Amino acid sequence: MGYYVTVIDPTPHSPAGQVVDKQIVADFTDEKAIRELAAQSDYLTFEIELSNATILDEISRMGVEVNPSAKTLTLIKDKLLQKQFLQKAKIPTAECRAIEMLADLELAAKEYGFPFLLKARFDAYDGRGNALIRSKADIRRGLEKLKGRLLYVEKYVPFIKELAVMVARSTTGEVKVYPVVETIHKNNICHTVLVPAPIPSIIQNKAQQLAEETMKSLHGAGVFGLEMFLTKKGDVLINEIAPRVHNSGHYTVEACVTNQFEQHIRAITGLPLGETDLVSSVAVMVNILGKKLSTARISGLEKALKFPNTAVHIYGKAETKPERKMGHITVTGSSMKVVHHHAMKARKFISI
Amino acid sequence: MGYYVTVIDPTPHSPAGQVVDKQIVADFTDEKAIRELAAQSDYLTFEIELSNATILDEISRMGVEVNPSAKTLTLIKDKLLQKQFLQKAKIPTAECRAIEMLADLELAAKEYGFPFLLKARFDAYDGRGNALIRSKADIRRGLEKLKGRLLYVEKYVPFIKELAVMVARSTTGEVKVYPVVETIHKNNICHTVLVPAPIPSIIQNKAQQLAEETMKSLHGAGVFGLEMFLTKKGDVLINEIAPRVHNSGHYTVEACVTNQFEQHIRAITGLPLGETDLVSSVAVMVNILGKKLSTARISGLEKALKFPNTAVHIYGKAETKPERKMGHITVTGSSMKVVHHHAMKARKFISI
Repeated sequence: MGYYVTVIDPTPHSPAGQVVDKQIVADFTDEKAIRELAAQSDYLTFEIELSNATILDEISRMGVEVNPSAKTLTLIKDKLLQKQFLQKAKIPTAECRAIEMLADLELAAKEYGFPFLLKARFDAYDGRGNALIRSKADIRRGLEKLKGRLLYVEKYVPFIKELAVMVARSTTGEVKVYPVVETIHKNNICHTVLVPAPIPSIIQNKAQQLAEETMKSLHGAGVFGLEMFLTKKGDVLINEIAPRVHNSGHYTVEACVTNQFEQHIRAITGLPLGETDLVSSVAVMVNILGKKLSTARISGLEKALKFPNTAVHIYGKAETKPERKMGHITVTGSSMKVVHHHAMKARKFISI
Repeated sequence: MGYYVTVIDPTPHSPAGQVVDKQIVADFTDEKAIRELAAQSDYLTFEIELSNATILDEISRMGVEVNPSAKTLTLIKDKLLQKQFLQKAKIPTAECRAIEMLADLELAAKEYGFPFLLKARFDAYDGRGNALIRSKADIRRGLEKLKGRLLYVEKYVPFIKELAVMVARSTTGEVKVYPVVETIHKNNICHTVLVPAPIPSIIQNKAQQLAEETMKSLHGAGVFGLEMFLTKKGDVLINEIAPRVHNSGHYTVEACVTNQFEQHIRAITGLPLGETDLVSSVAVMVNILGKKLSTARISGLEKALKFPNTAVHIYGKAETKPERKMGHITVTGSSMKVVHHHAMKARKFISI
């Protein structure tokens, strides 16, 4: 698009660093590095919630466009604040409450019943920061796991599917909503994304409307990933907002007119947003997660790519670790059954 | 795809250099640089015919895979040899002959009639290296223009359309053919590409068959751009072979399942080739050419991107020059008339 791009990442030759013009090697929250980046940039953005909201706020006051806004980041970083904001905006979400002492936990158990969730308010992703409390005996174990962190409790939603919707809002106010997808998690980590979600169209519409409503309430521009629960009764609730391009949106590279990455850049630089239509009937995205701690060495591409309409993305991380996101596979086509089957088989051939 | 990529380019921070892992700043034919690149690479390829075939040949003997092969490069670099090869393989192409003295030119004029083409055998692209000889008086002017170069003459083909077909061949022998497109040139430079070419399907099939035949005769793997002439009688002739990804294939990024760039990498590394099907009914690609000599500064993106299904690619060249290829626009959609109109209007908004 003609932009000169610099990124901050603590790992030299990071995935983003490998494709942009320049990388500043520093921690995501490094004040000096963020100021250095701001000094050479017209637009500032982030794609990890760990960013330093206080400094971003200060920088945006100095005239550099920061999107999503520091205000949005502050709201989303704190998962309790995020949930309370949704409740205030009358957007359906799981009930929750802050806890300060053990008595609050016992009260929650009484009010919500077992199971319920004990969650860290900050820096929780890919399941790091959650504990499912099935019985009174689990309370102590949960508190031990999340020791030293600010916590809240959340009513357990007995969902039948997890859905996700990517939404873009430009600095001009324009909003575009992507199709509703189903996300399949294992150990709280996204494994597979089915596009479009195999659900009735009435539920699809409900989820897309919910996504639009949520975006109307939120400030700031960019691409957002909205994670949702679908209940047996057909209710759709917001589970979580990610203020960034999202794993559940990687399918857009092959399956949509405009992919989430270009869309994000259009959104934060005030360009017209691109179309979000699917260019294939269905798509399945499956993550390539690491197995053990070692130097990353990919094999099996020659077998995985034998399946039709299959694309393999490797992120270029030098080290692989158990459950680390090392890449993903997207398969497009016309039959969900066939495409899903091919994606699973292609995945089995790749090792990293 | 997980590959570590190094390029040679004489301009620091070159278009390719901006997105790959490492750039060696050197001339394309620099022997030392090519050897340095080969020493750190498993696969070697090129995307400009100016490469040094002699060294590539030597390197491939040393065990580094070079594709397209040095043999193919040698054949294609010399446009006379290329044409003679096609004639030997009984592939329809314009008549031609080597010239060594003025008498040969006069003979050609007698045999082919006016107009005919006087052409440089080597290093001719984007019209640099051609002279149209309309009358006896043009002969001296043509010789003056191409002074000091090895020349040949070619019969003028009174074509009604120029067509192009991208073809990929893997080191495993697998071949995939892309749709037939129409290319519209001004001053011998590609301006617009219409996808698919608005021609009867019988002509499309003929062009695709011709492309496959040509590839069967050629050695080496990679993506090739085949330029063709369509005559009034419905004959299709090969005009030129480009042994590389090609301007007439840029549309594949938005409009095909597998784009020509990924396809080339699959082809030279022996991976299965990707599907070449269109993902939209029609597409139009229009080049963004420079107007004058100056520092490149792009404007008008916010207007150009208002047209639906429009993507703008800027190559990141620091300097703009008259007729220099600075970027391109691709518009996809369902109606050729609408898409063509949008592409032209979007192009008018961009200045660089």
